[in-house]
Amino acid sequence: MRQDAQRNRERILAAAREVYAEQGVEAPLDVIARRADVGNATLYRRFPDRAALIEAVFQEDLAATIEAGERMRGSADPWEGLNGYLERIFSGLATDRGVTDLMTTDIAGVPTLEQLHVHNAETIGGLLARCREDGSVRGDVTVEDVLFTLAALGRAVPAADAVVAGSWRRLLALFLDGLRAEGVRPLPGEPLTSEQLKGALGALGAAGTTGKQEAAHRAGRSGPAE
Amino acid sequence: MRQDAQRNRERILAAAREVYAEQGVEAPLDVIARRADVGNATLYRRFPDRAALIEAVFQEDLAATIEAGERMRGSADPWEGLNGYLERIFSGLATDRGVTDLMTTDIAGVPTLEQLHVHNAETIGGLLARCREDGSVRGDVTVEDVLFTLAALGRAVPAADAVVAGSWRRLLALFLDGLRAEGVRPLPGEPLTSEQLKGALGALGAAGTTGKQEAAHRAGRSGPAE
Repeated sequence: MRQDAQRNRERILAAAREVYAEQGVEAPLDVIARRADVGNATLYRRFPDRAALIEAVFQEDLAATIEAGERMRGSADPWEGLNGYLERIFSGLATDRGVTDLMTTDIAGVPTLEQLHVHNAETIGGLLARCREDGSVRGDVTVEDVLFTLAALGRAVPAADAVVAGSWRRLLALFLDGLRAEGVRPLPGEPLTSEQLKGALGALGAAGTTGKQEAAHRAGRSGPAE
Repeated sequence: MRQDAQRNRERILAAAREVYAEQGVEAPLDVIARRADVGNATLYRRFPDRAALIEAVFQEDLAATIEAGERMRGSADPWEGLNGYLERIFSGLATDRGVTDLMTTDIAGVPTLEQLHVHNAETIGGLLARCREDGSVRGDVTVEDVLFTLAALGRAVPAADAVVAGSWRRLLALFLDGLRAEGVRPLPGEPLTSEQLKGALGALGAAGTTGKQEAAHRAGRSGPAE
């Protein structure tokens, strides 16, 4: 019995990983149950909600990204640290639609993701502060500017990569050159506050998905049990 | 009878404009028919497919954007022309979700949109060439780089604007500073060809929507007649 349970869990995680990579993390749970060849009730018993399943699927990836951030924070050259960290993030986005969704939208209730969001903002904030101090980055750009622009560009990374592998590097290089201190003009208006950024990221998520998908997910939850 | 037909047409266009602004241009036709309070058959008789309806709704806006591009092309200062044109485009994106979808995805069969895409690429290409010539823009950036980055950033404009009106201007300013000739490092890799750009824009569109939406649209087409 315990072996059966373990096998089901592994099948569900493998199916979820596949479906998330193909359709994003808004994919309805019943699609994952069908792919794993288990009943909806079995899936819901193991993973009572979408957040629990997302946590289980991505926990390892997210933890590895946090570790990479930790290393980059310690870079002797903060500009190299910022470059290296953003390249690491975009590389991850290039390979997995599920990762893109996770990193660029505001999904509640996934502990490792919340930890990563906080860690990511701290890593970028810390590197940015060091870069402004040593004069490599313009003084008027805020961590909210960078986080929002990264979310916007990040969503395009899989599309660029699907056409020419690695072509997202030009996108990132253009953005990084916009951050550099040389030859910039003052940014217009006020930067977003961190609360406003949260709202903007939420709206960015909503624009990329549809009420229909959320509805489909909920419909999956109340579908017939196995 | 003719007055009835004219009134129905106006109701359909007003409803479509609203629904597109709320849900994007992938919204199913039957949602628009319900909003206009006309039967599906009436809607399909006037507008045999989604492209015909989109053309009718956006024709005026698209033509105005083409005119603005025409004016900006003639700017005495090409850098000001490029800035002004991109600001015009982003302002349009900020106000209407339907316009964002139209401008940033690859929708076939809408003549004025196709004309705008060609005109847009020509306007940006022409202004970019003049900017490179007068030394205001880096030499290694291509029109494909700019068009793809604009599509990526453009999708984030409504989200930024929803939180703080006009806050997308910082996003655009950061991008424009990345284009400037001062203090840049060479861009990595090869730029996309125009064919590859087409593929990347198509993939970017697909990532923002879902197969489900397209299916819903088709389901709308084969739904019960009035």
